[in-house]
Amino acid sequence: MRSSTKITHAAKRKRGRPRAFITEEVLERVRGVFWAKGFAGASLDDLAEAAGLNRPSLYAAFGDKQDLYIATLKFYGERSIAQMDALMAMEEMPIEERVGRVYKAAIDMYTAPPTRPGCLIVSTATVESPTHPEIGKVAAGLLAAIEKSFEKGFAKSRLAKVPSPAERAHMAGAIMYAMSIRARLGARVADLRKFAADMIHVICR
Amino acid sequence: MRSSTKITHAAKRKRGRPRAFITEEVLERVRGVFWAKGFAGASLDDLAEAAGLNRPSLYAAFGDKQDLYIATLKFYGERSIAQMDALMAMEEMPIEERVGRVYKAAIDMYTAPPTRPGCLIVSTATVESPTHPEIGKVAAGLLAAIEKSFEKGFAKSRLAKVPSPAERAHMAGAIMYAMSIRARLGARVADLRKFAADMIHVICR
Repeated sequence: MRSSTKITHAAKRKRGRPRAFITEEVLERVRGVFWAKGFAGASLDDLAEAAGLNRPSLYAAFGDKQDLYIATLKFYGERSIAQMDALMAMEEMPIEERVGRVYKAAIDMYTAPPTRPGCLIVSTATVESPTHPEIGKVAAGLLAAIEKSFEKGFAKSRLAKVPSPAERAHMAGAIMYAMSIRARLGARVADLRKFAADMIHVICR
Repeated sequence: MRSSTKITHAAKRKRGRPRAFITEEVLERVRGVFWAKGFAGASLDDLAEAAGLNRPSLYAAFGDKQDLYIATLKFYGERSIAQMDALMAMEEMPIEERVGRVYKAAIDMYTAPPTRPGCLIVSTATVESPTHPEIGKVAAGLLAAIEKSFEKGFAKSRLAKVPSPAERAHMAGAIMYAMSIRARLGARVADLRKFAADMIHVICR
């Protein structure tokens, strides 16, 4: 009984706007806070203010700070990986160009003003892994999916079979993580683009 | 007058043990806290307890949490870079072996139990860059020094001049940062070693 009351109540509260839309709007807002300040550095007050909700409503909708962070990480991580998968599947395009498009999108996102935040996973999730193993697990899963996406792309290419698609994917992932770190520490866009171009040449050799 | 009183007082308090030694001992202890919990996640109580000092003594000796963190980052960063410089200068050793030794030392440190903490700079400093620009500046300087160390090593090698020593150094740095991220997220030592070996082959080609 209790749970059906809850559902009815929730449905009434959000009448007129689909729940997924509201969720996405809130995640978009809190993402900015987590991205700039990190998980540990983001206070619940910061998050509630960004979400435009009071703390009890935020709790009720998403659970605690870790739940909210993990929901954000998964939502944006999975969306980015779906975009990568689509690019990597474009077999008619040379693999160099496919990787180049992924890197270009990454650099654009990593260097976005005002904070030049890098990748949310690399920049803000990794640090929490020892103290918040659940965050570490989700982050590791997302990075593995990124490398799997690269791997499927390399497997559908005319490159030599040594290094293997999996080895090339590790390299391609490593380069992307390094771009995230360098962006967050202030590297210039031109330097990141030059680095990406150099590395594509090496990875696809 | 005031400052000379302070100095006499400090000298008396620490009689019998050189100040540098005491500093190093405290930094060693607080490093463990920063490494496991990150800068934002480390509370002053955690730090004071690890240091074996009360909070006022810790403040008096090192300033605020950011000062203490930056002192730790610089002390260990500069020490690691000095060790790298020494290895990279061993011209009698093939460059592949020099890079291999740097990576081996890095993997050993990154996967140390119990937290498998990765690199202190990459794992814990990068996230703070937007909210603590001074930390970002120190971290960027240390990573630049790491890449400069690699570059000097590549310049003293028999490798072809294309890619340039600076380009190879960017690659070598990127691979090390990726190893740090993967270690903190739980990658196996054997996988990191295989990755290092594969990448040395690519970087030194």
